[in-house]
Amino acid sequence: MTVDERREELIRFGRELFSQHAYDALSIDDIAAAASVSKGLLYHYFENKRDYYVAVVRAVTAEMREVLPDPSLPPDQQLRQGIEGYLDFAENHAHAFRSVLDGGVGADADVRQVVEEIRTLYIERILGALSIDSPSPVLRLALRGWIGFGEAATVQWLAEREVARGDLVRMLIEMLNAVFESARRIDPAIDVR
Amino acid sequence: MTVDERREELIRFGRELFSQHAYDALSIDDIAAAASVSKGLLYHYFENKRDYYVAVVRAVTAEMREVLPDPSLPPDQQLRQGIEGYLDFAENHAHAFRSVLDGGVGADADVRQVVEEIRTLYIERILGALSIDSPSPVLRLALRGWIGFGEAATVQWLAEREVARGDLVRMLIEMLNAVFESARRIDPAIDVR
Repeated sequence: MTVDERREELIRFGRELFSQHAYDALSIDDIAAAASVSKGLLYHYFENKRDYYVAVVRAVTAEMREVLPDPSLPPDQQLRQGIEGYLDFAENHAHAFRSVLDGGVGADADVRQVVEEIRTLYIERILGALSIDSPSPVLRLALRGWIGFGEAATVQWLAEREVARGDLVRMLIEMLNAVFESARRIDPAIDVR
Repeated sequence: MTVDERREELIRFGRELFSQHAYDALSIDDIAAAASVSKGLLYHYFENKRDYYVAVVRAVTAEMREVLPDPSLPPDQQLRQGIEGYLDFAENHAHAFRSVLDGGVGADADVRQVVEEIRTLYIERILGALSIDSPSPVLRLALRGWIGFGEAATVQWLAEREVARGDLVRMLIEMLNAVFESARRIDPAIDVR
C-alpha cells in the first residue's frame, strides 16, 4: 500500500470505530489495538488522537454531502429526501453525531469548522431549491434557527428513541414551513415560491 | 474578608472579565493581573482556569434563573418576558453566551451540565405555564428543538447584529406556537390550553 492508501484505510477504520464508541472512551492504545496496528504507525500518520478524530470527522461529513438530494427534484421532495438522508446519517453515526453536536470533542476548532461548513451548505441548498438568491438577514436567521432545531431534536431523538422517525421527519418539515411563514410575516419583502 | 467572601469576589470579577473576553483569549496570568491578585491566590481558590471558568458560568447562569418570569402571569406574558430576559442575558454576557453554546469551552462536561439544567428548567417552566403535567415524547422533542432554535438564532443574532431585536423576539414566539401546533397535529392526544 502507498502512504496515502494506508492513511485512507486507517480513516475508514476510524469511521467504524467512532460510530460505535465515544471519542472520550477510546485511547490511542485502544485504537491501535482495535486496528491491529502499532501505536507508532498511528503516530506516523496522525499527530495525536484529536488529529486522527478530525480526519475521521472530515471523511464522515464528506458522506453527508454525498447524500444531499438531487437539486433537479421539486423542493418538497428535496426537503423530504434531505431530511431522510440526514437522519440515516445520524442513525448510522450515532456516537459521532452526538459527540460532535453535543459539546465534547465537538468543541475542537477544526471539528466546529467542519460542522459549520455543513450547516452553511444545508442553508444554501434550501435557498437554492427555492431559487432565493439574496436571503434577507431575517430569513437567514430563521434558517439557522431551523438547523439548530433539527440538531437539538435529532440529538434528543437518538438519545431517547421514544418518537417514531416518521414523526420527527414530519415535525422537521412542518417547522421549516413555519420558519418561512414567520420570516415572511416579519419581513414581507422575502420572496418565496 | 472571609475565605468565602474572597472567592465570591473573584467570581464576581470573572463575570465581568468573561463578558468582555473570550475564554481562550485569557491566561491565568492575564486573569490575575486584571484582578490585581497573585496567581497563587487564584490557585488557592480554583484548581485551574477551567475550574475558575466553571464557577463563573455557574454564577452567571444563576442569574438566568433570577430573570425567569413571574409564574402567576398569563402564559403569553410569561413567554414574552422570558424571551426578553433571555436576550437581555445574551446581550449582557455575549462572549460567555457564545462560547458556552458554540462549542469552545462549552464542551467541558461541567459547563454542559449547567447548560443542560437551564434548558430543562426552561422547558419545565413553559409546560408549567400551560399546566401540562405529563408532556408526550413528541412534545418534549418539539420543545427541545425550539430551545435549539432559540440558541442557534440568538448566537447568530449576536454575531451578525443585522436583525432588530424585536423581530427575533417575534420569531421566537411564533416558532414556539408553531412547535405546539406541529406537536398537536402529530400527536392529537396532546392537551394544551
